Amino acid sequence: MNIKLEKVLPAEIEARSFEIISSELKKELRDELAPIIKRVIHTTADFDYAENLVFSPGCVASAREAIKNGACVFTDTNMAKAGINKKKLKAFGGEAFCFIDDDRVREAAEKNGTTRAVASVDLASTIGRPLIFAIGNAPTALVRIYELIKEGALKPELVIGAPVGFVNVVQSKELIMECDVPYIIARGRKGGSNVAAAIVNALLYGIEQVKSE
Amino acid sequence: MNIKLEKVLPAEIEARSFEIISSELKKELRDELAPIIKRVIHTTADFDYAENLVFSPGCVASAREAIKNGACVFTDTNMAKAGINKKKLKAFGGEAFCFIDDDRVREAAEKNGTTRAVASVDLASTIGRPLIFAIGNAPTALVRIYELIKEGALKPELVIGAPVGFVNVVQSKELIMECDVPYIIARGRKGGSNVAAAIVNALLYGIEQVKSE
Repeated sequence: MNIKLEKVLPAEIEARSFEIISSELKKELRDELAPIIKRVIHTTADFDYAENLVFSPGCVASAREAIKNGACVFTDTNMAKAGINKKKLKAFGGEAFCFIDDDRVREAAEKNGTTRAVASVDLASTIGRPLIFAIGNAPTALVRIYELIKEGALKPELVIGAPVGFVNVVQSKELIMECDVPYIIARGRKGGSNVAAAIVNALLYGIEQVKSE
Repeated sequence: MNIKLEKVLPAEIEARSFEIISSELKKELRDELAPIIKRVIHTTADFDYAENLVFSPGCVASAREAIKNGACVFTDTNMAKAGINKKKLKAFGGEAFCFIDDDRVREAAEKNGTTRAVASVDLASTIGRPLIFAIGNAPTALVRIYELIKEGALKPELVIGAPVGFVNVVQSKELIMECDVPYIIARGRKGGSNVAAAIVNALLYGIEQVKSE
């Protein structure tokens, strides 16, 4: 077989990828949403996300404002945390947290018969800093966020709801969309830690663009 | 809307997910490949992987043998490394490596005008331990692995080729399939750090099952 590599300089690979994505997208995207949707497609090569991603009104602008004011990002997995550009987040005063391997979380989950993801959300709700939740794995985490919001115990700056899978994943996302909070939801079964991290990064990179203008 | 959550105990979520995947799969899978394909679908909720994943003959058994003999896993991203069950890998004597943030890699990439992923593969080729390459992001890493194999400078135990994206991703995977090495390839544009990690974990969990029989 004759396999021909495209000649693209390392620094130009991402721009070339976004060009291809833009040219193949069959849907007009709203300006403020386009960078987020395209980055998720860039991360997954899955154009379904042009349909699946649902945004609450004004959430992109408000989330960027929150980040500029030092909001932190909570993830339900170490993978999502690993995928987030923590250097850029730090430049605005924020941090990324994942408590899934925290001993307190392990103990609370065992004691209460919950997933560790649920216990990690409970722990996050106590840290007293403005929070963006980036959930890419555990629907149980998303359900717990819903419960805490309904109880008035949690008021997130943004909920990124992108768990992936087959058990209560679809439902957990619909629950968040019933809440009066800013959200970005990957509707349906699809999502992932990579998707959650890509959404956070797209928010971060968007701030930089605005800044440099 | 009436959103109804399925009642599933935390410990049973994964088994229930695999049940759903098995019931929805429209294709008979070969016994030794099924756990790997299903775990990737579990990680992505994307049934395309039932078609996209390509395995060289005997690669699952030989990769598990390599792990049992202490093979290490090299990843091209911190995300993939974060997703690998490093505790299980360590139980067999292996380690997971990602050199993407290594200063030597940064310097070599700058000096040679390559991606950091390429430089990190070069570094991996010098460490003198049996290696499984788990590439979930950078096609340039996969192309470099191909070149080193062709030069006789690298003889991996397994190449997991699952970069995702639009520039040279498809081609890089086809190149590996031309090599005389064991491989698991996510053919086409799709893949990801999560996919690469899921494949490693499926290999690891399969060994445990064999052990406990």
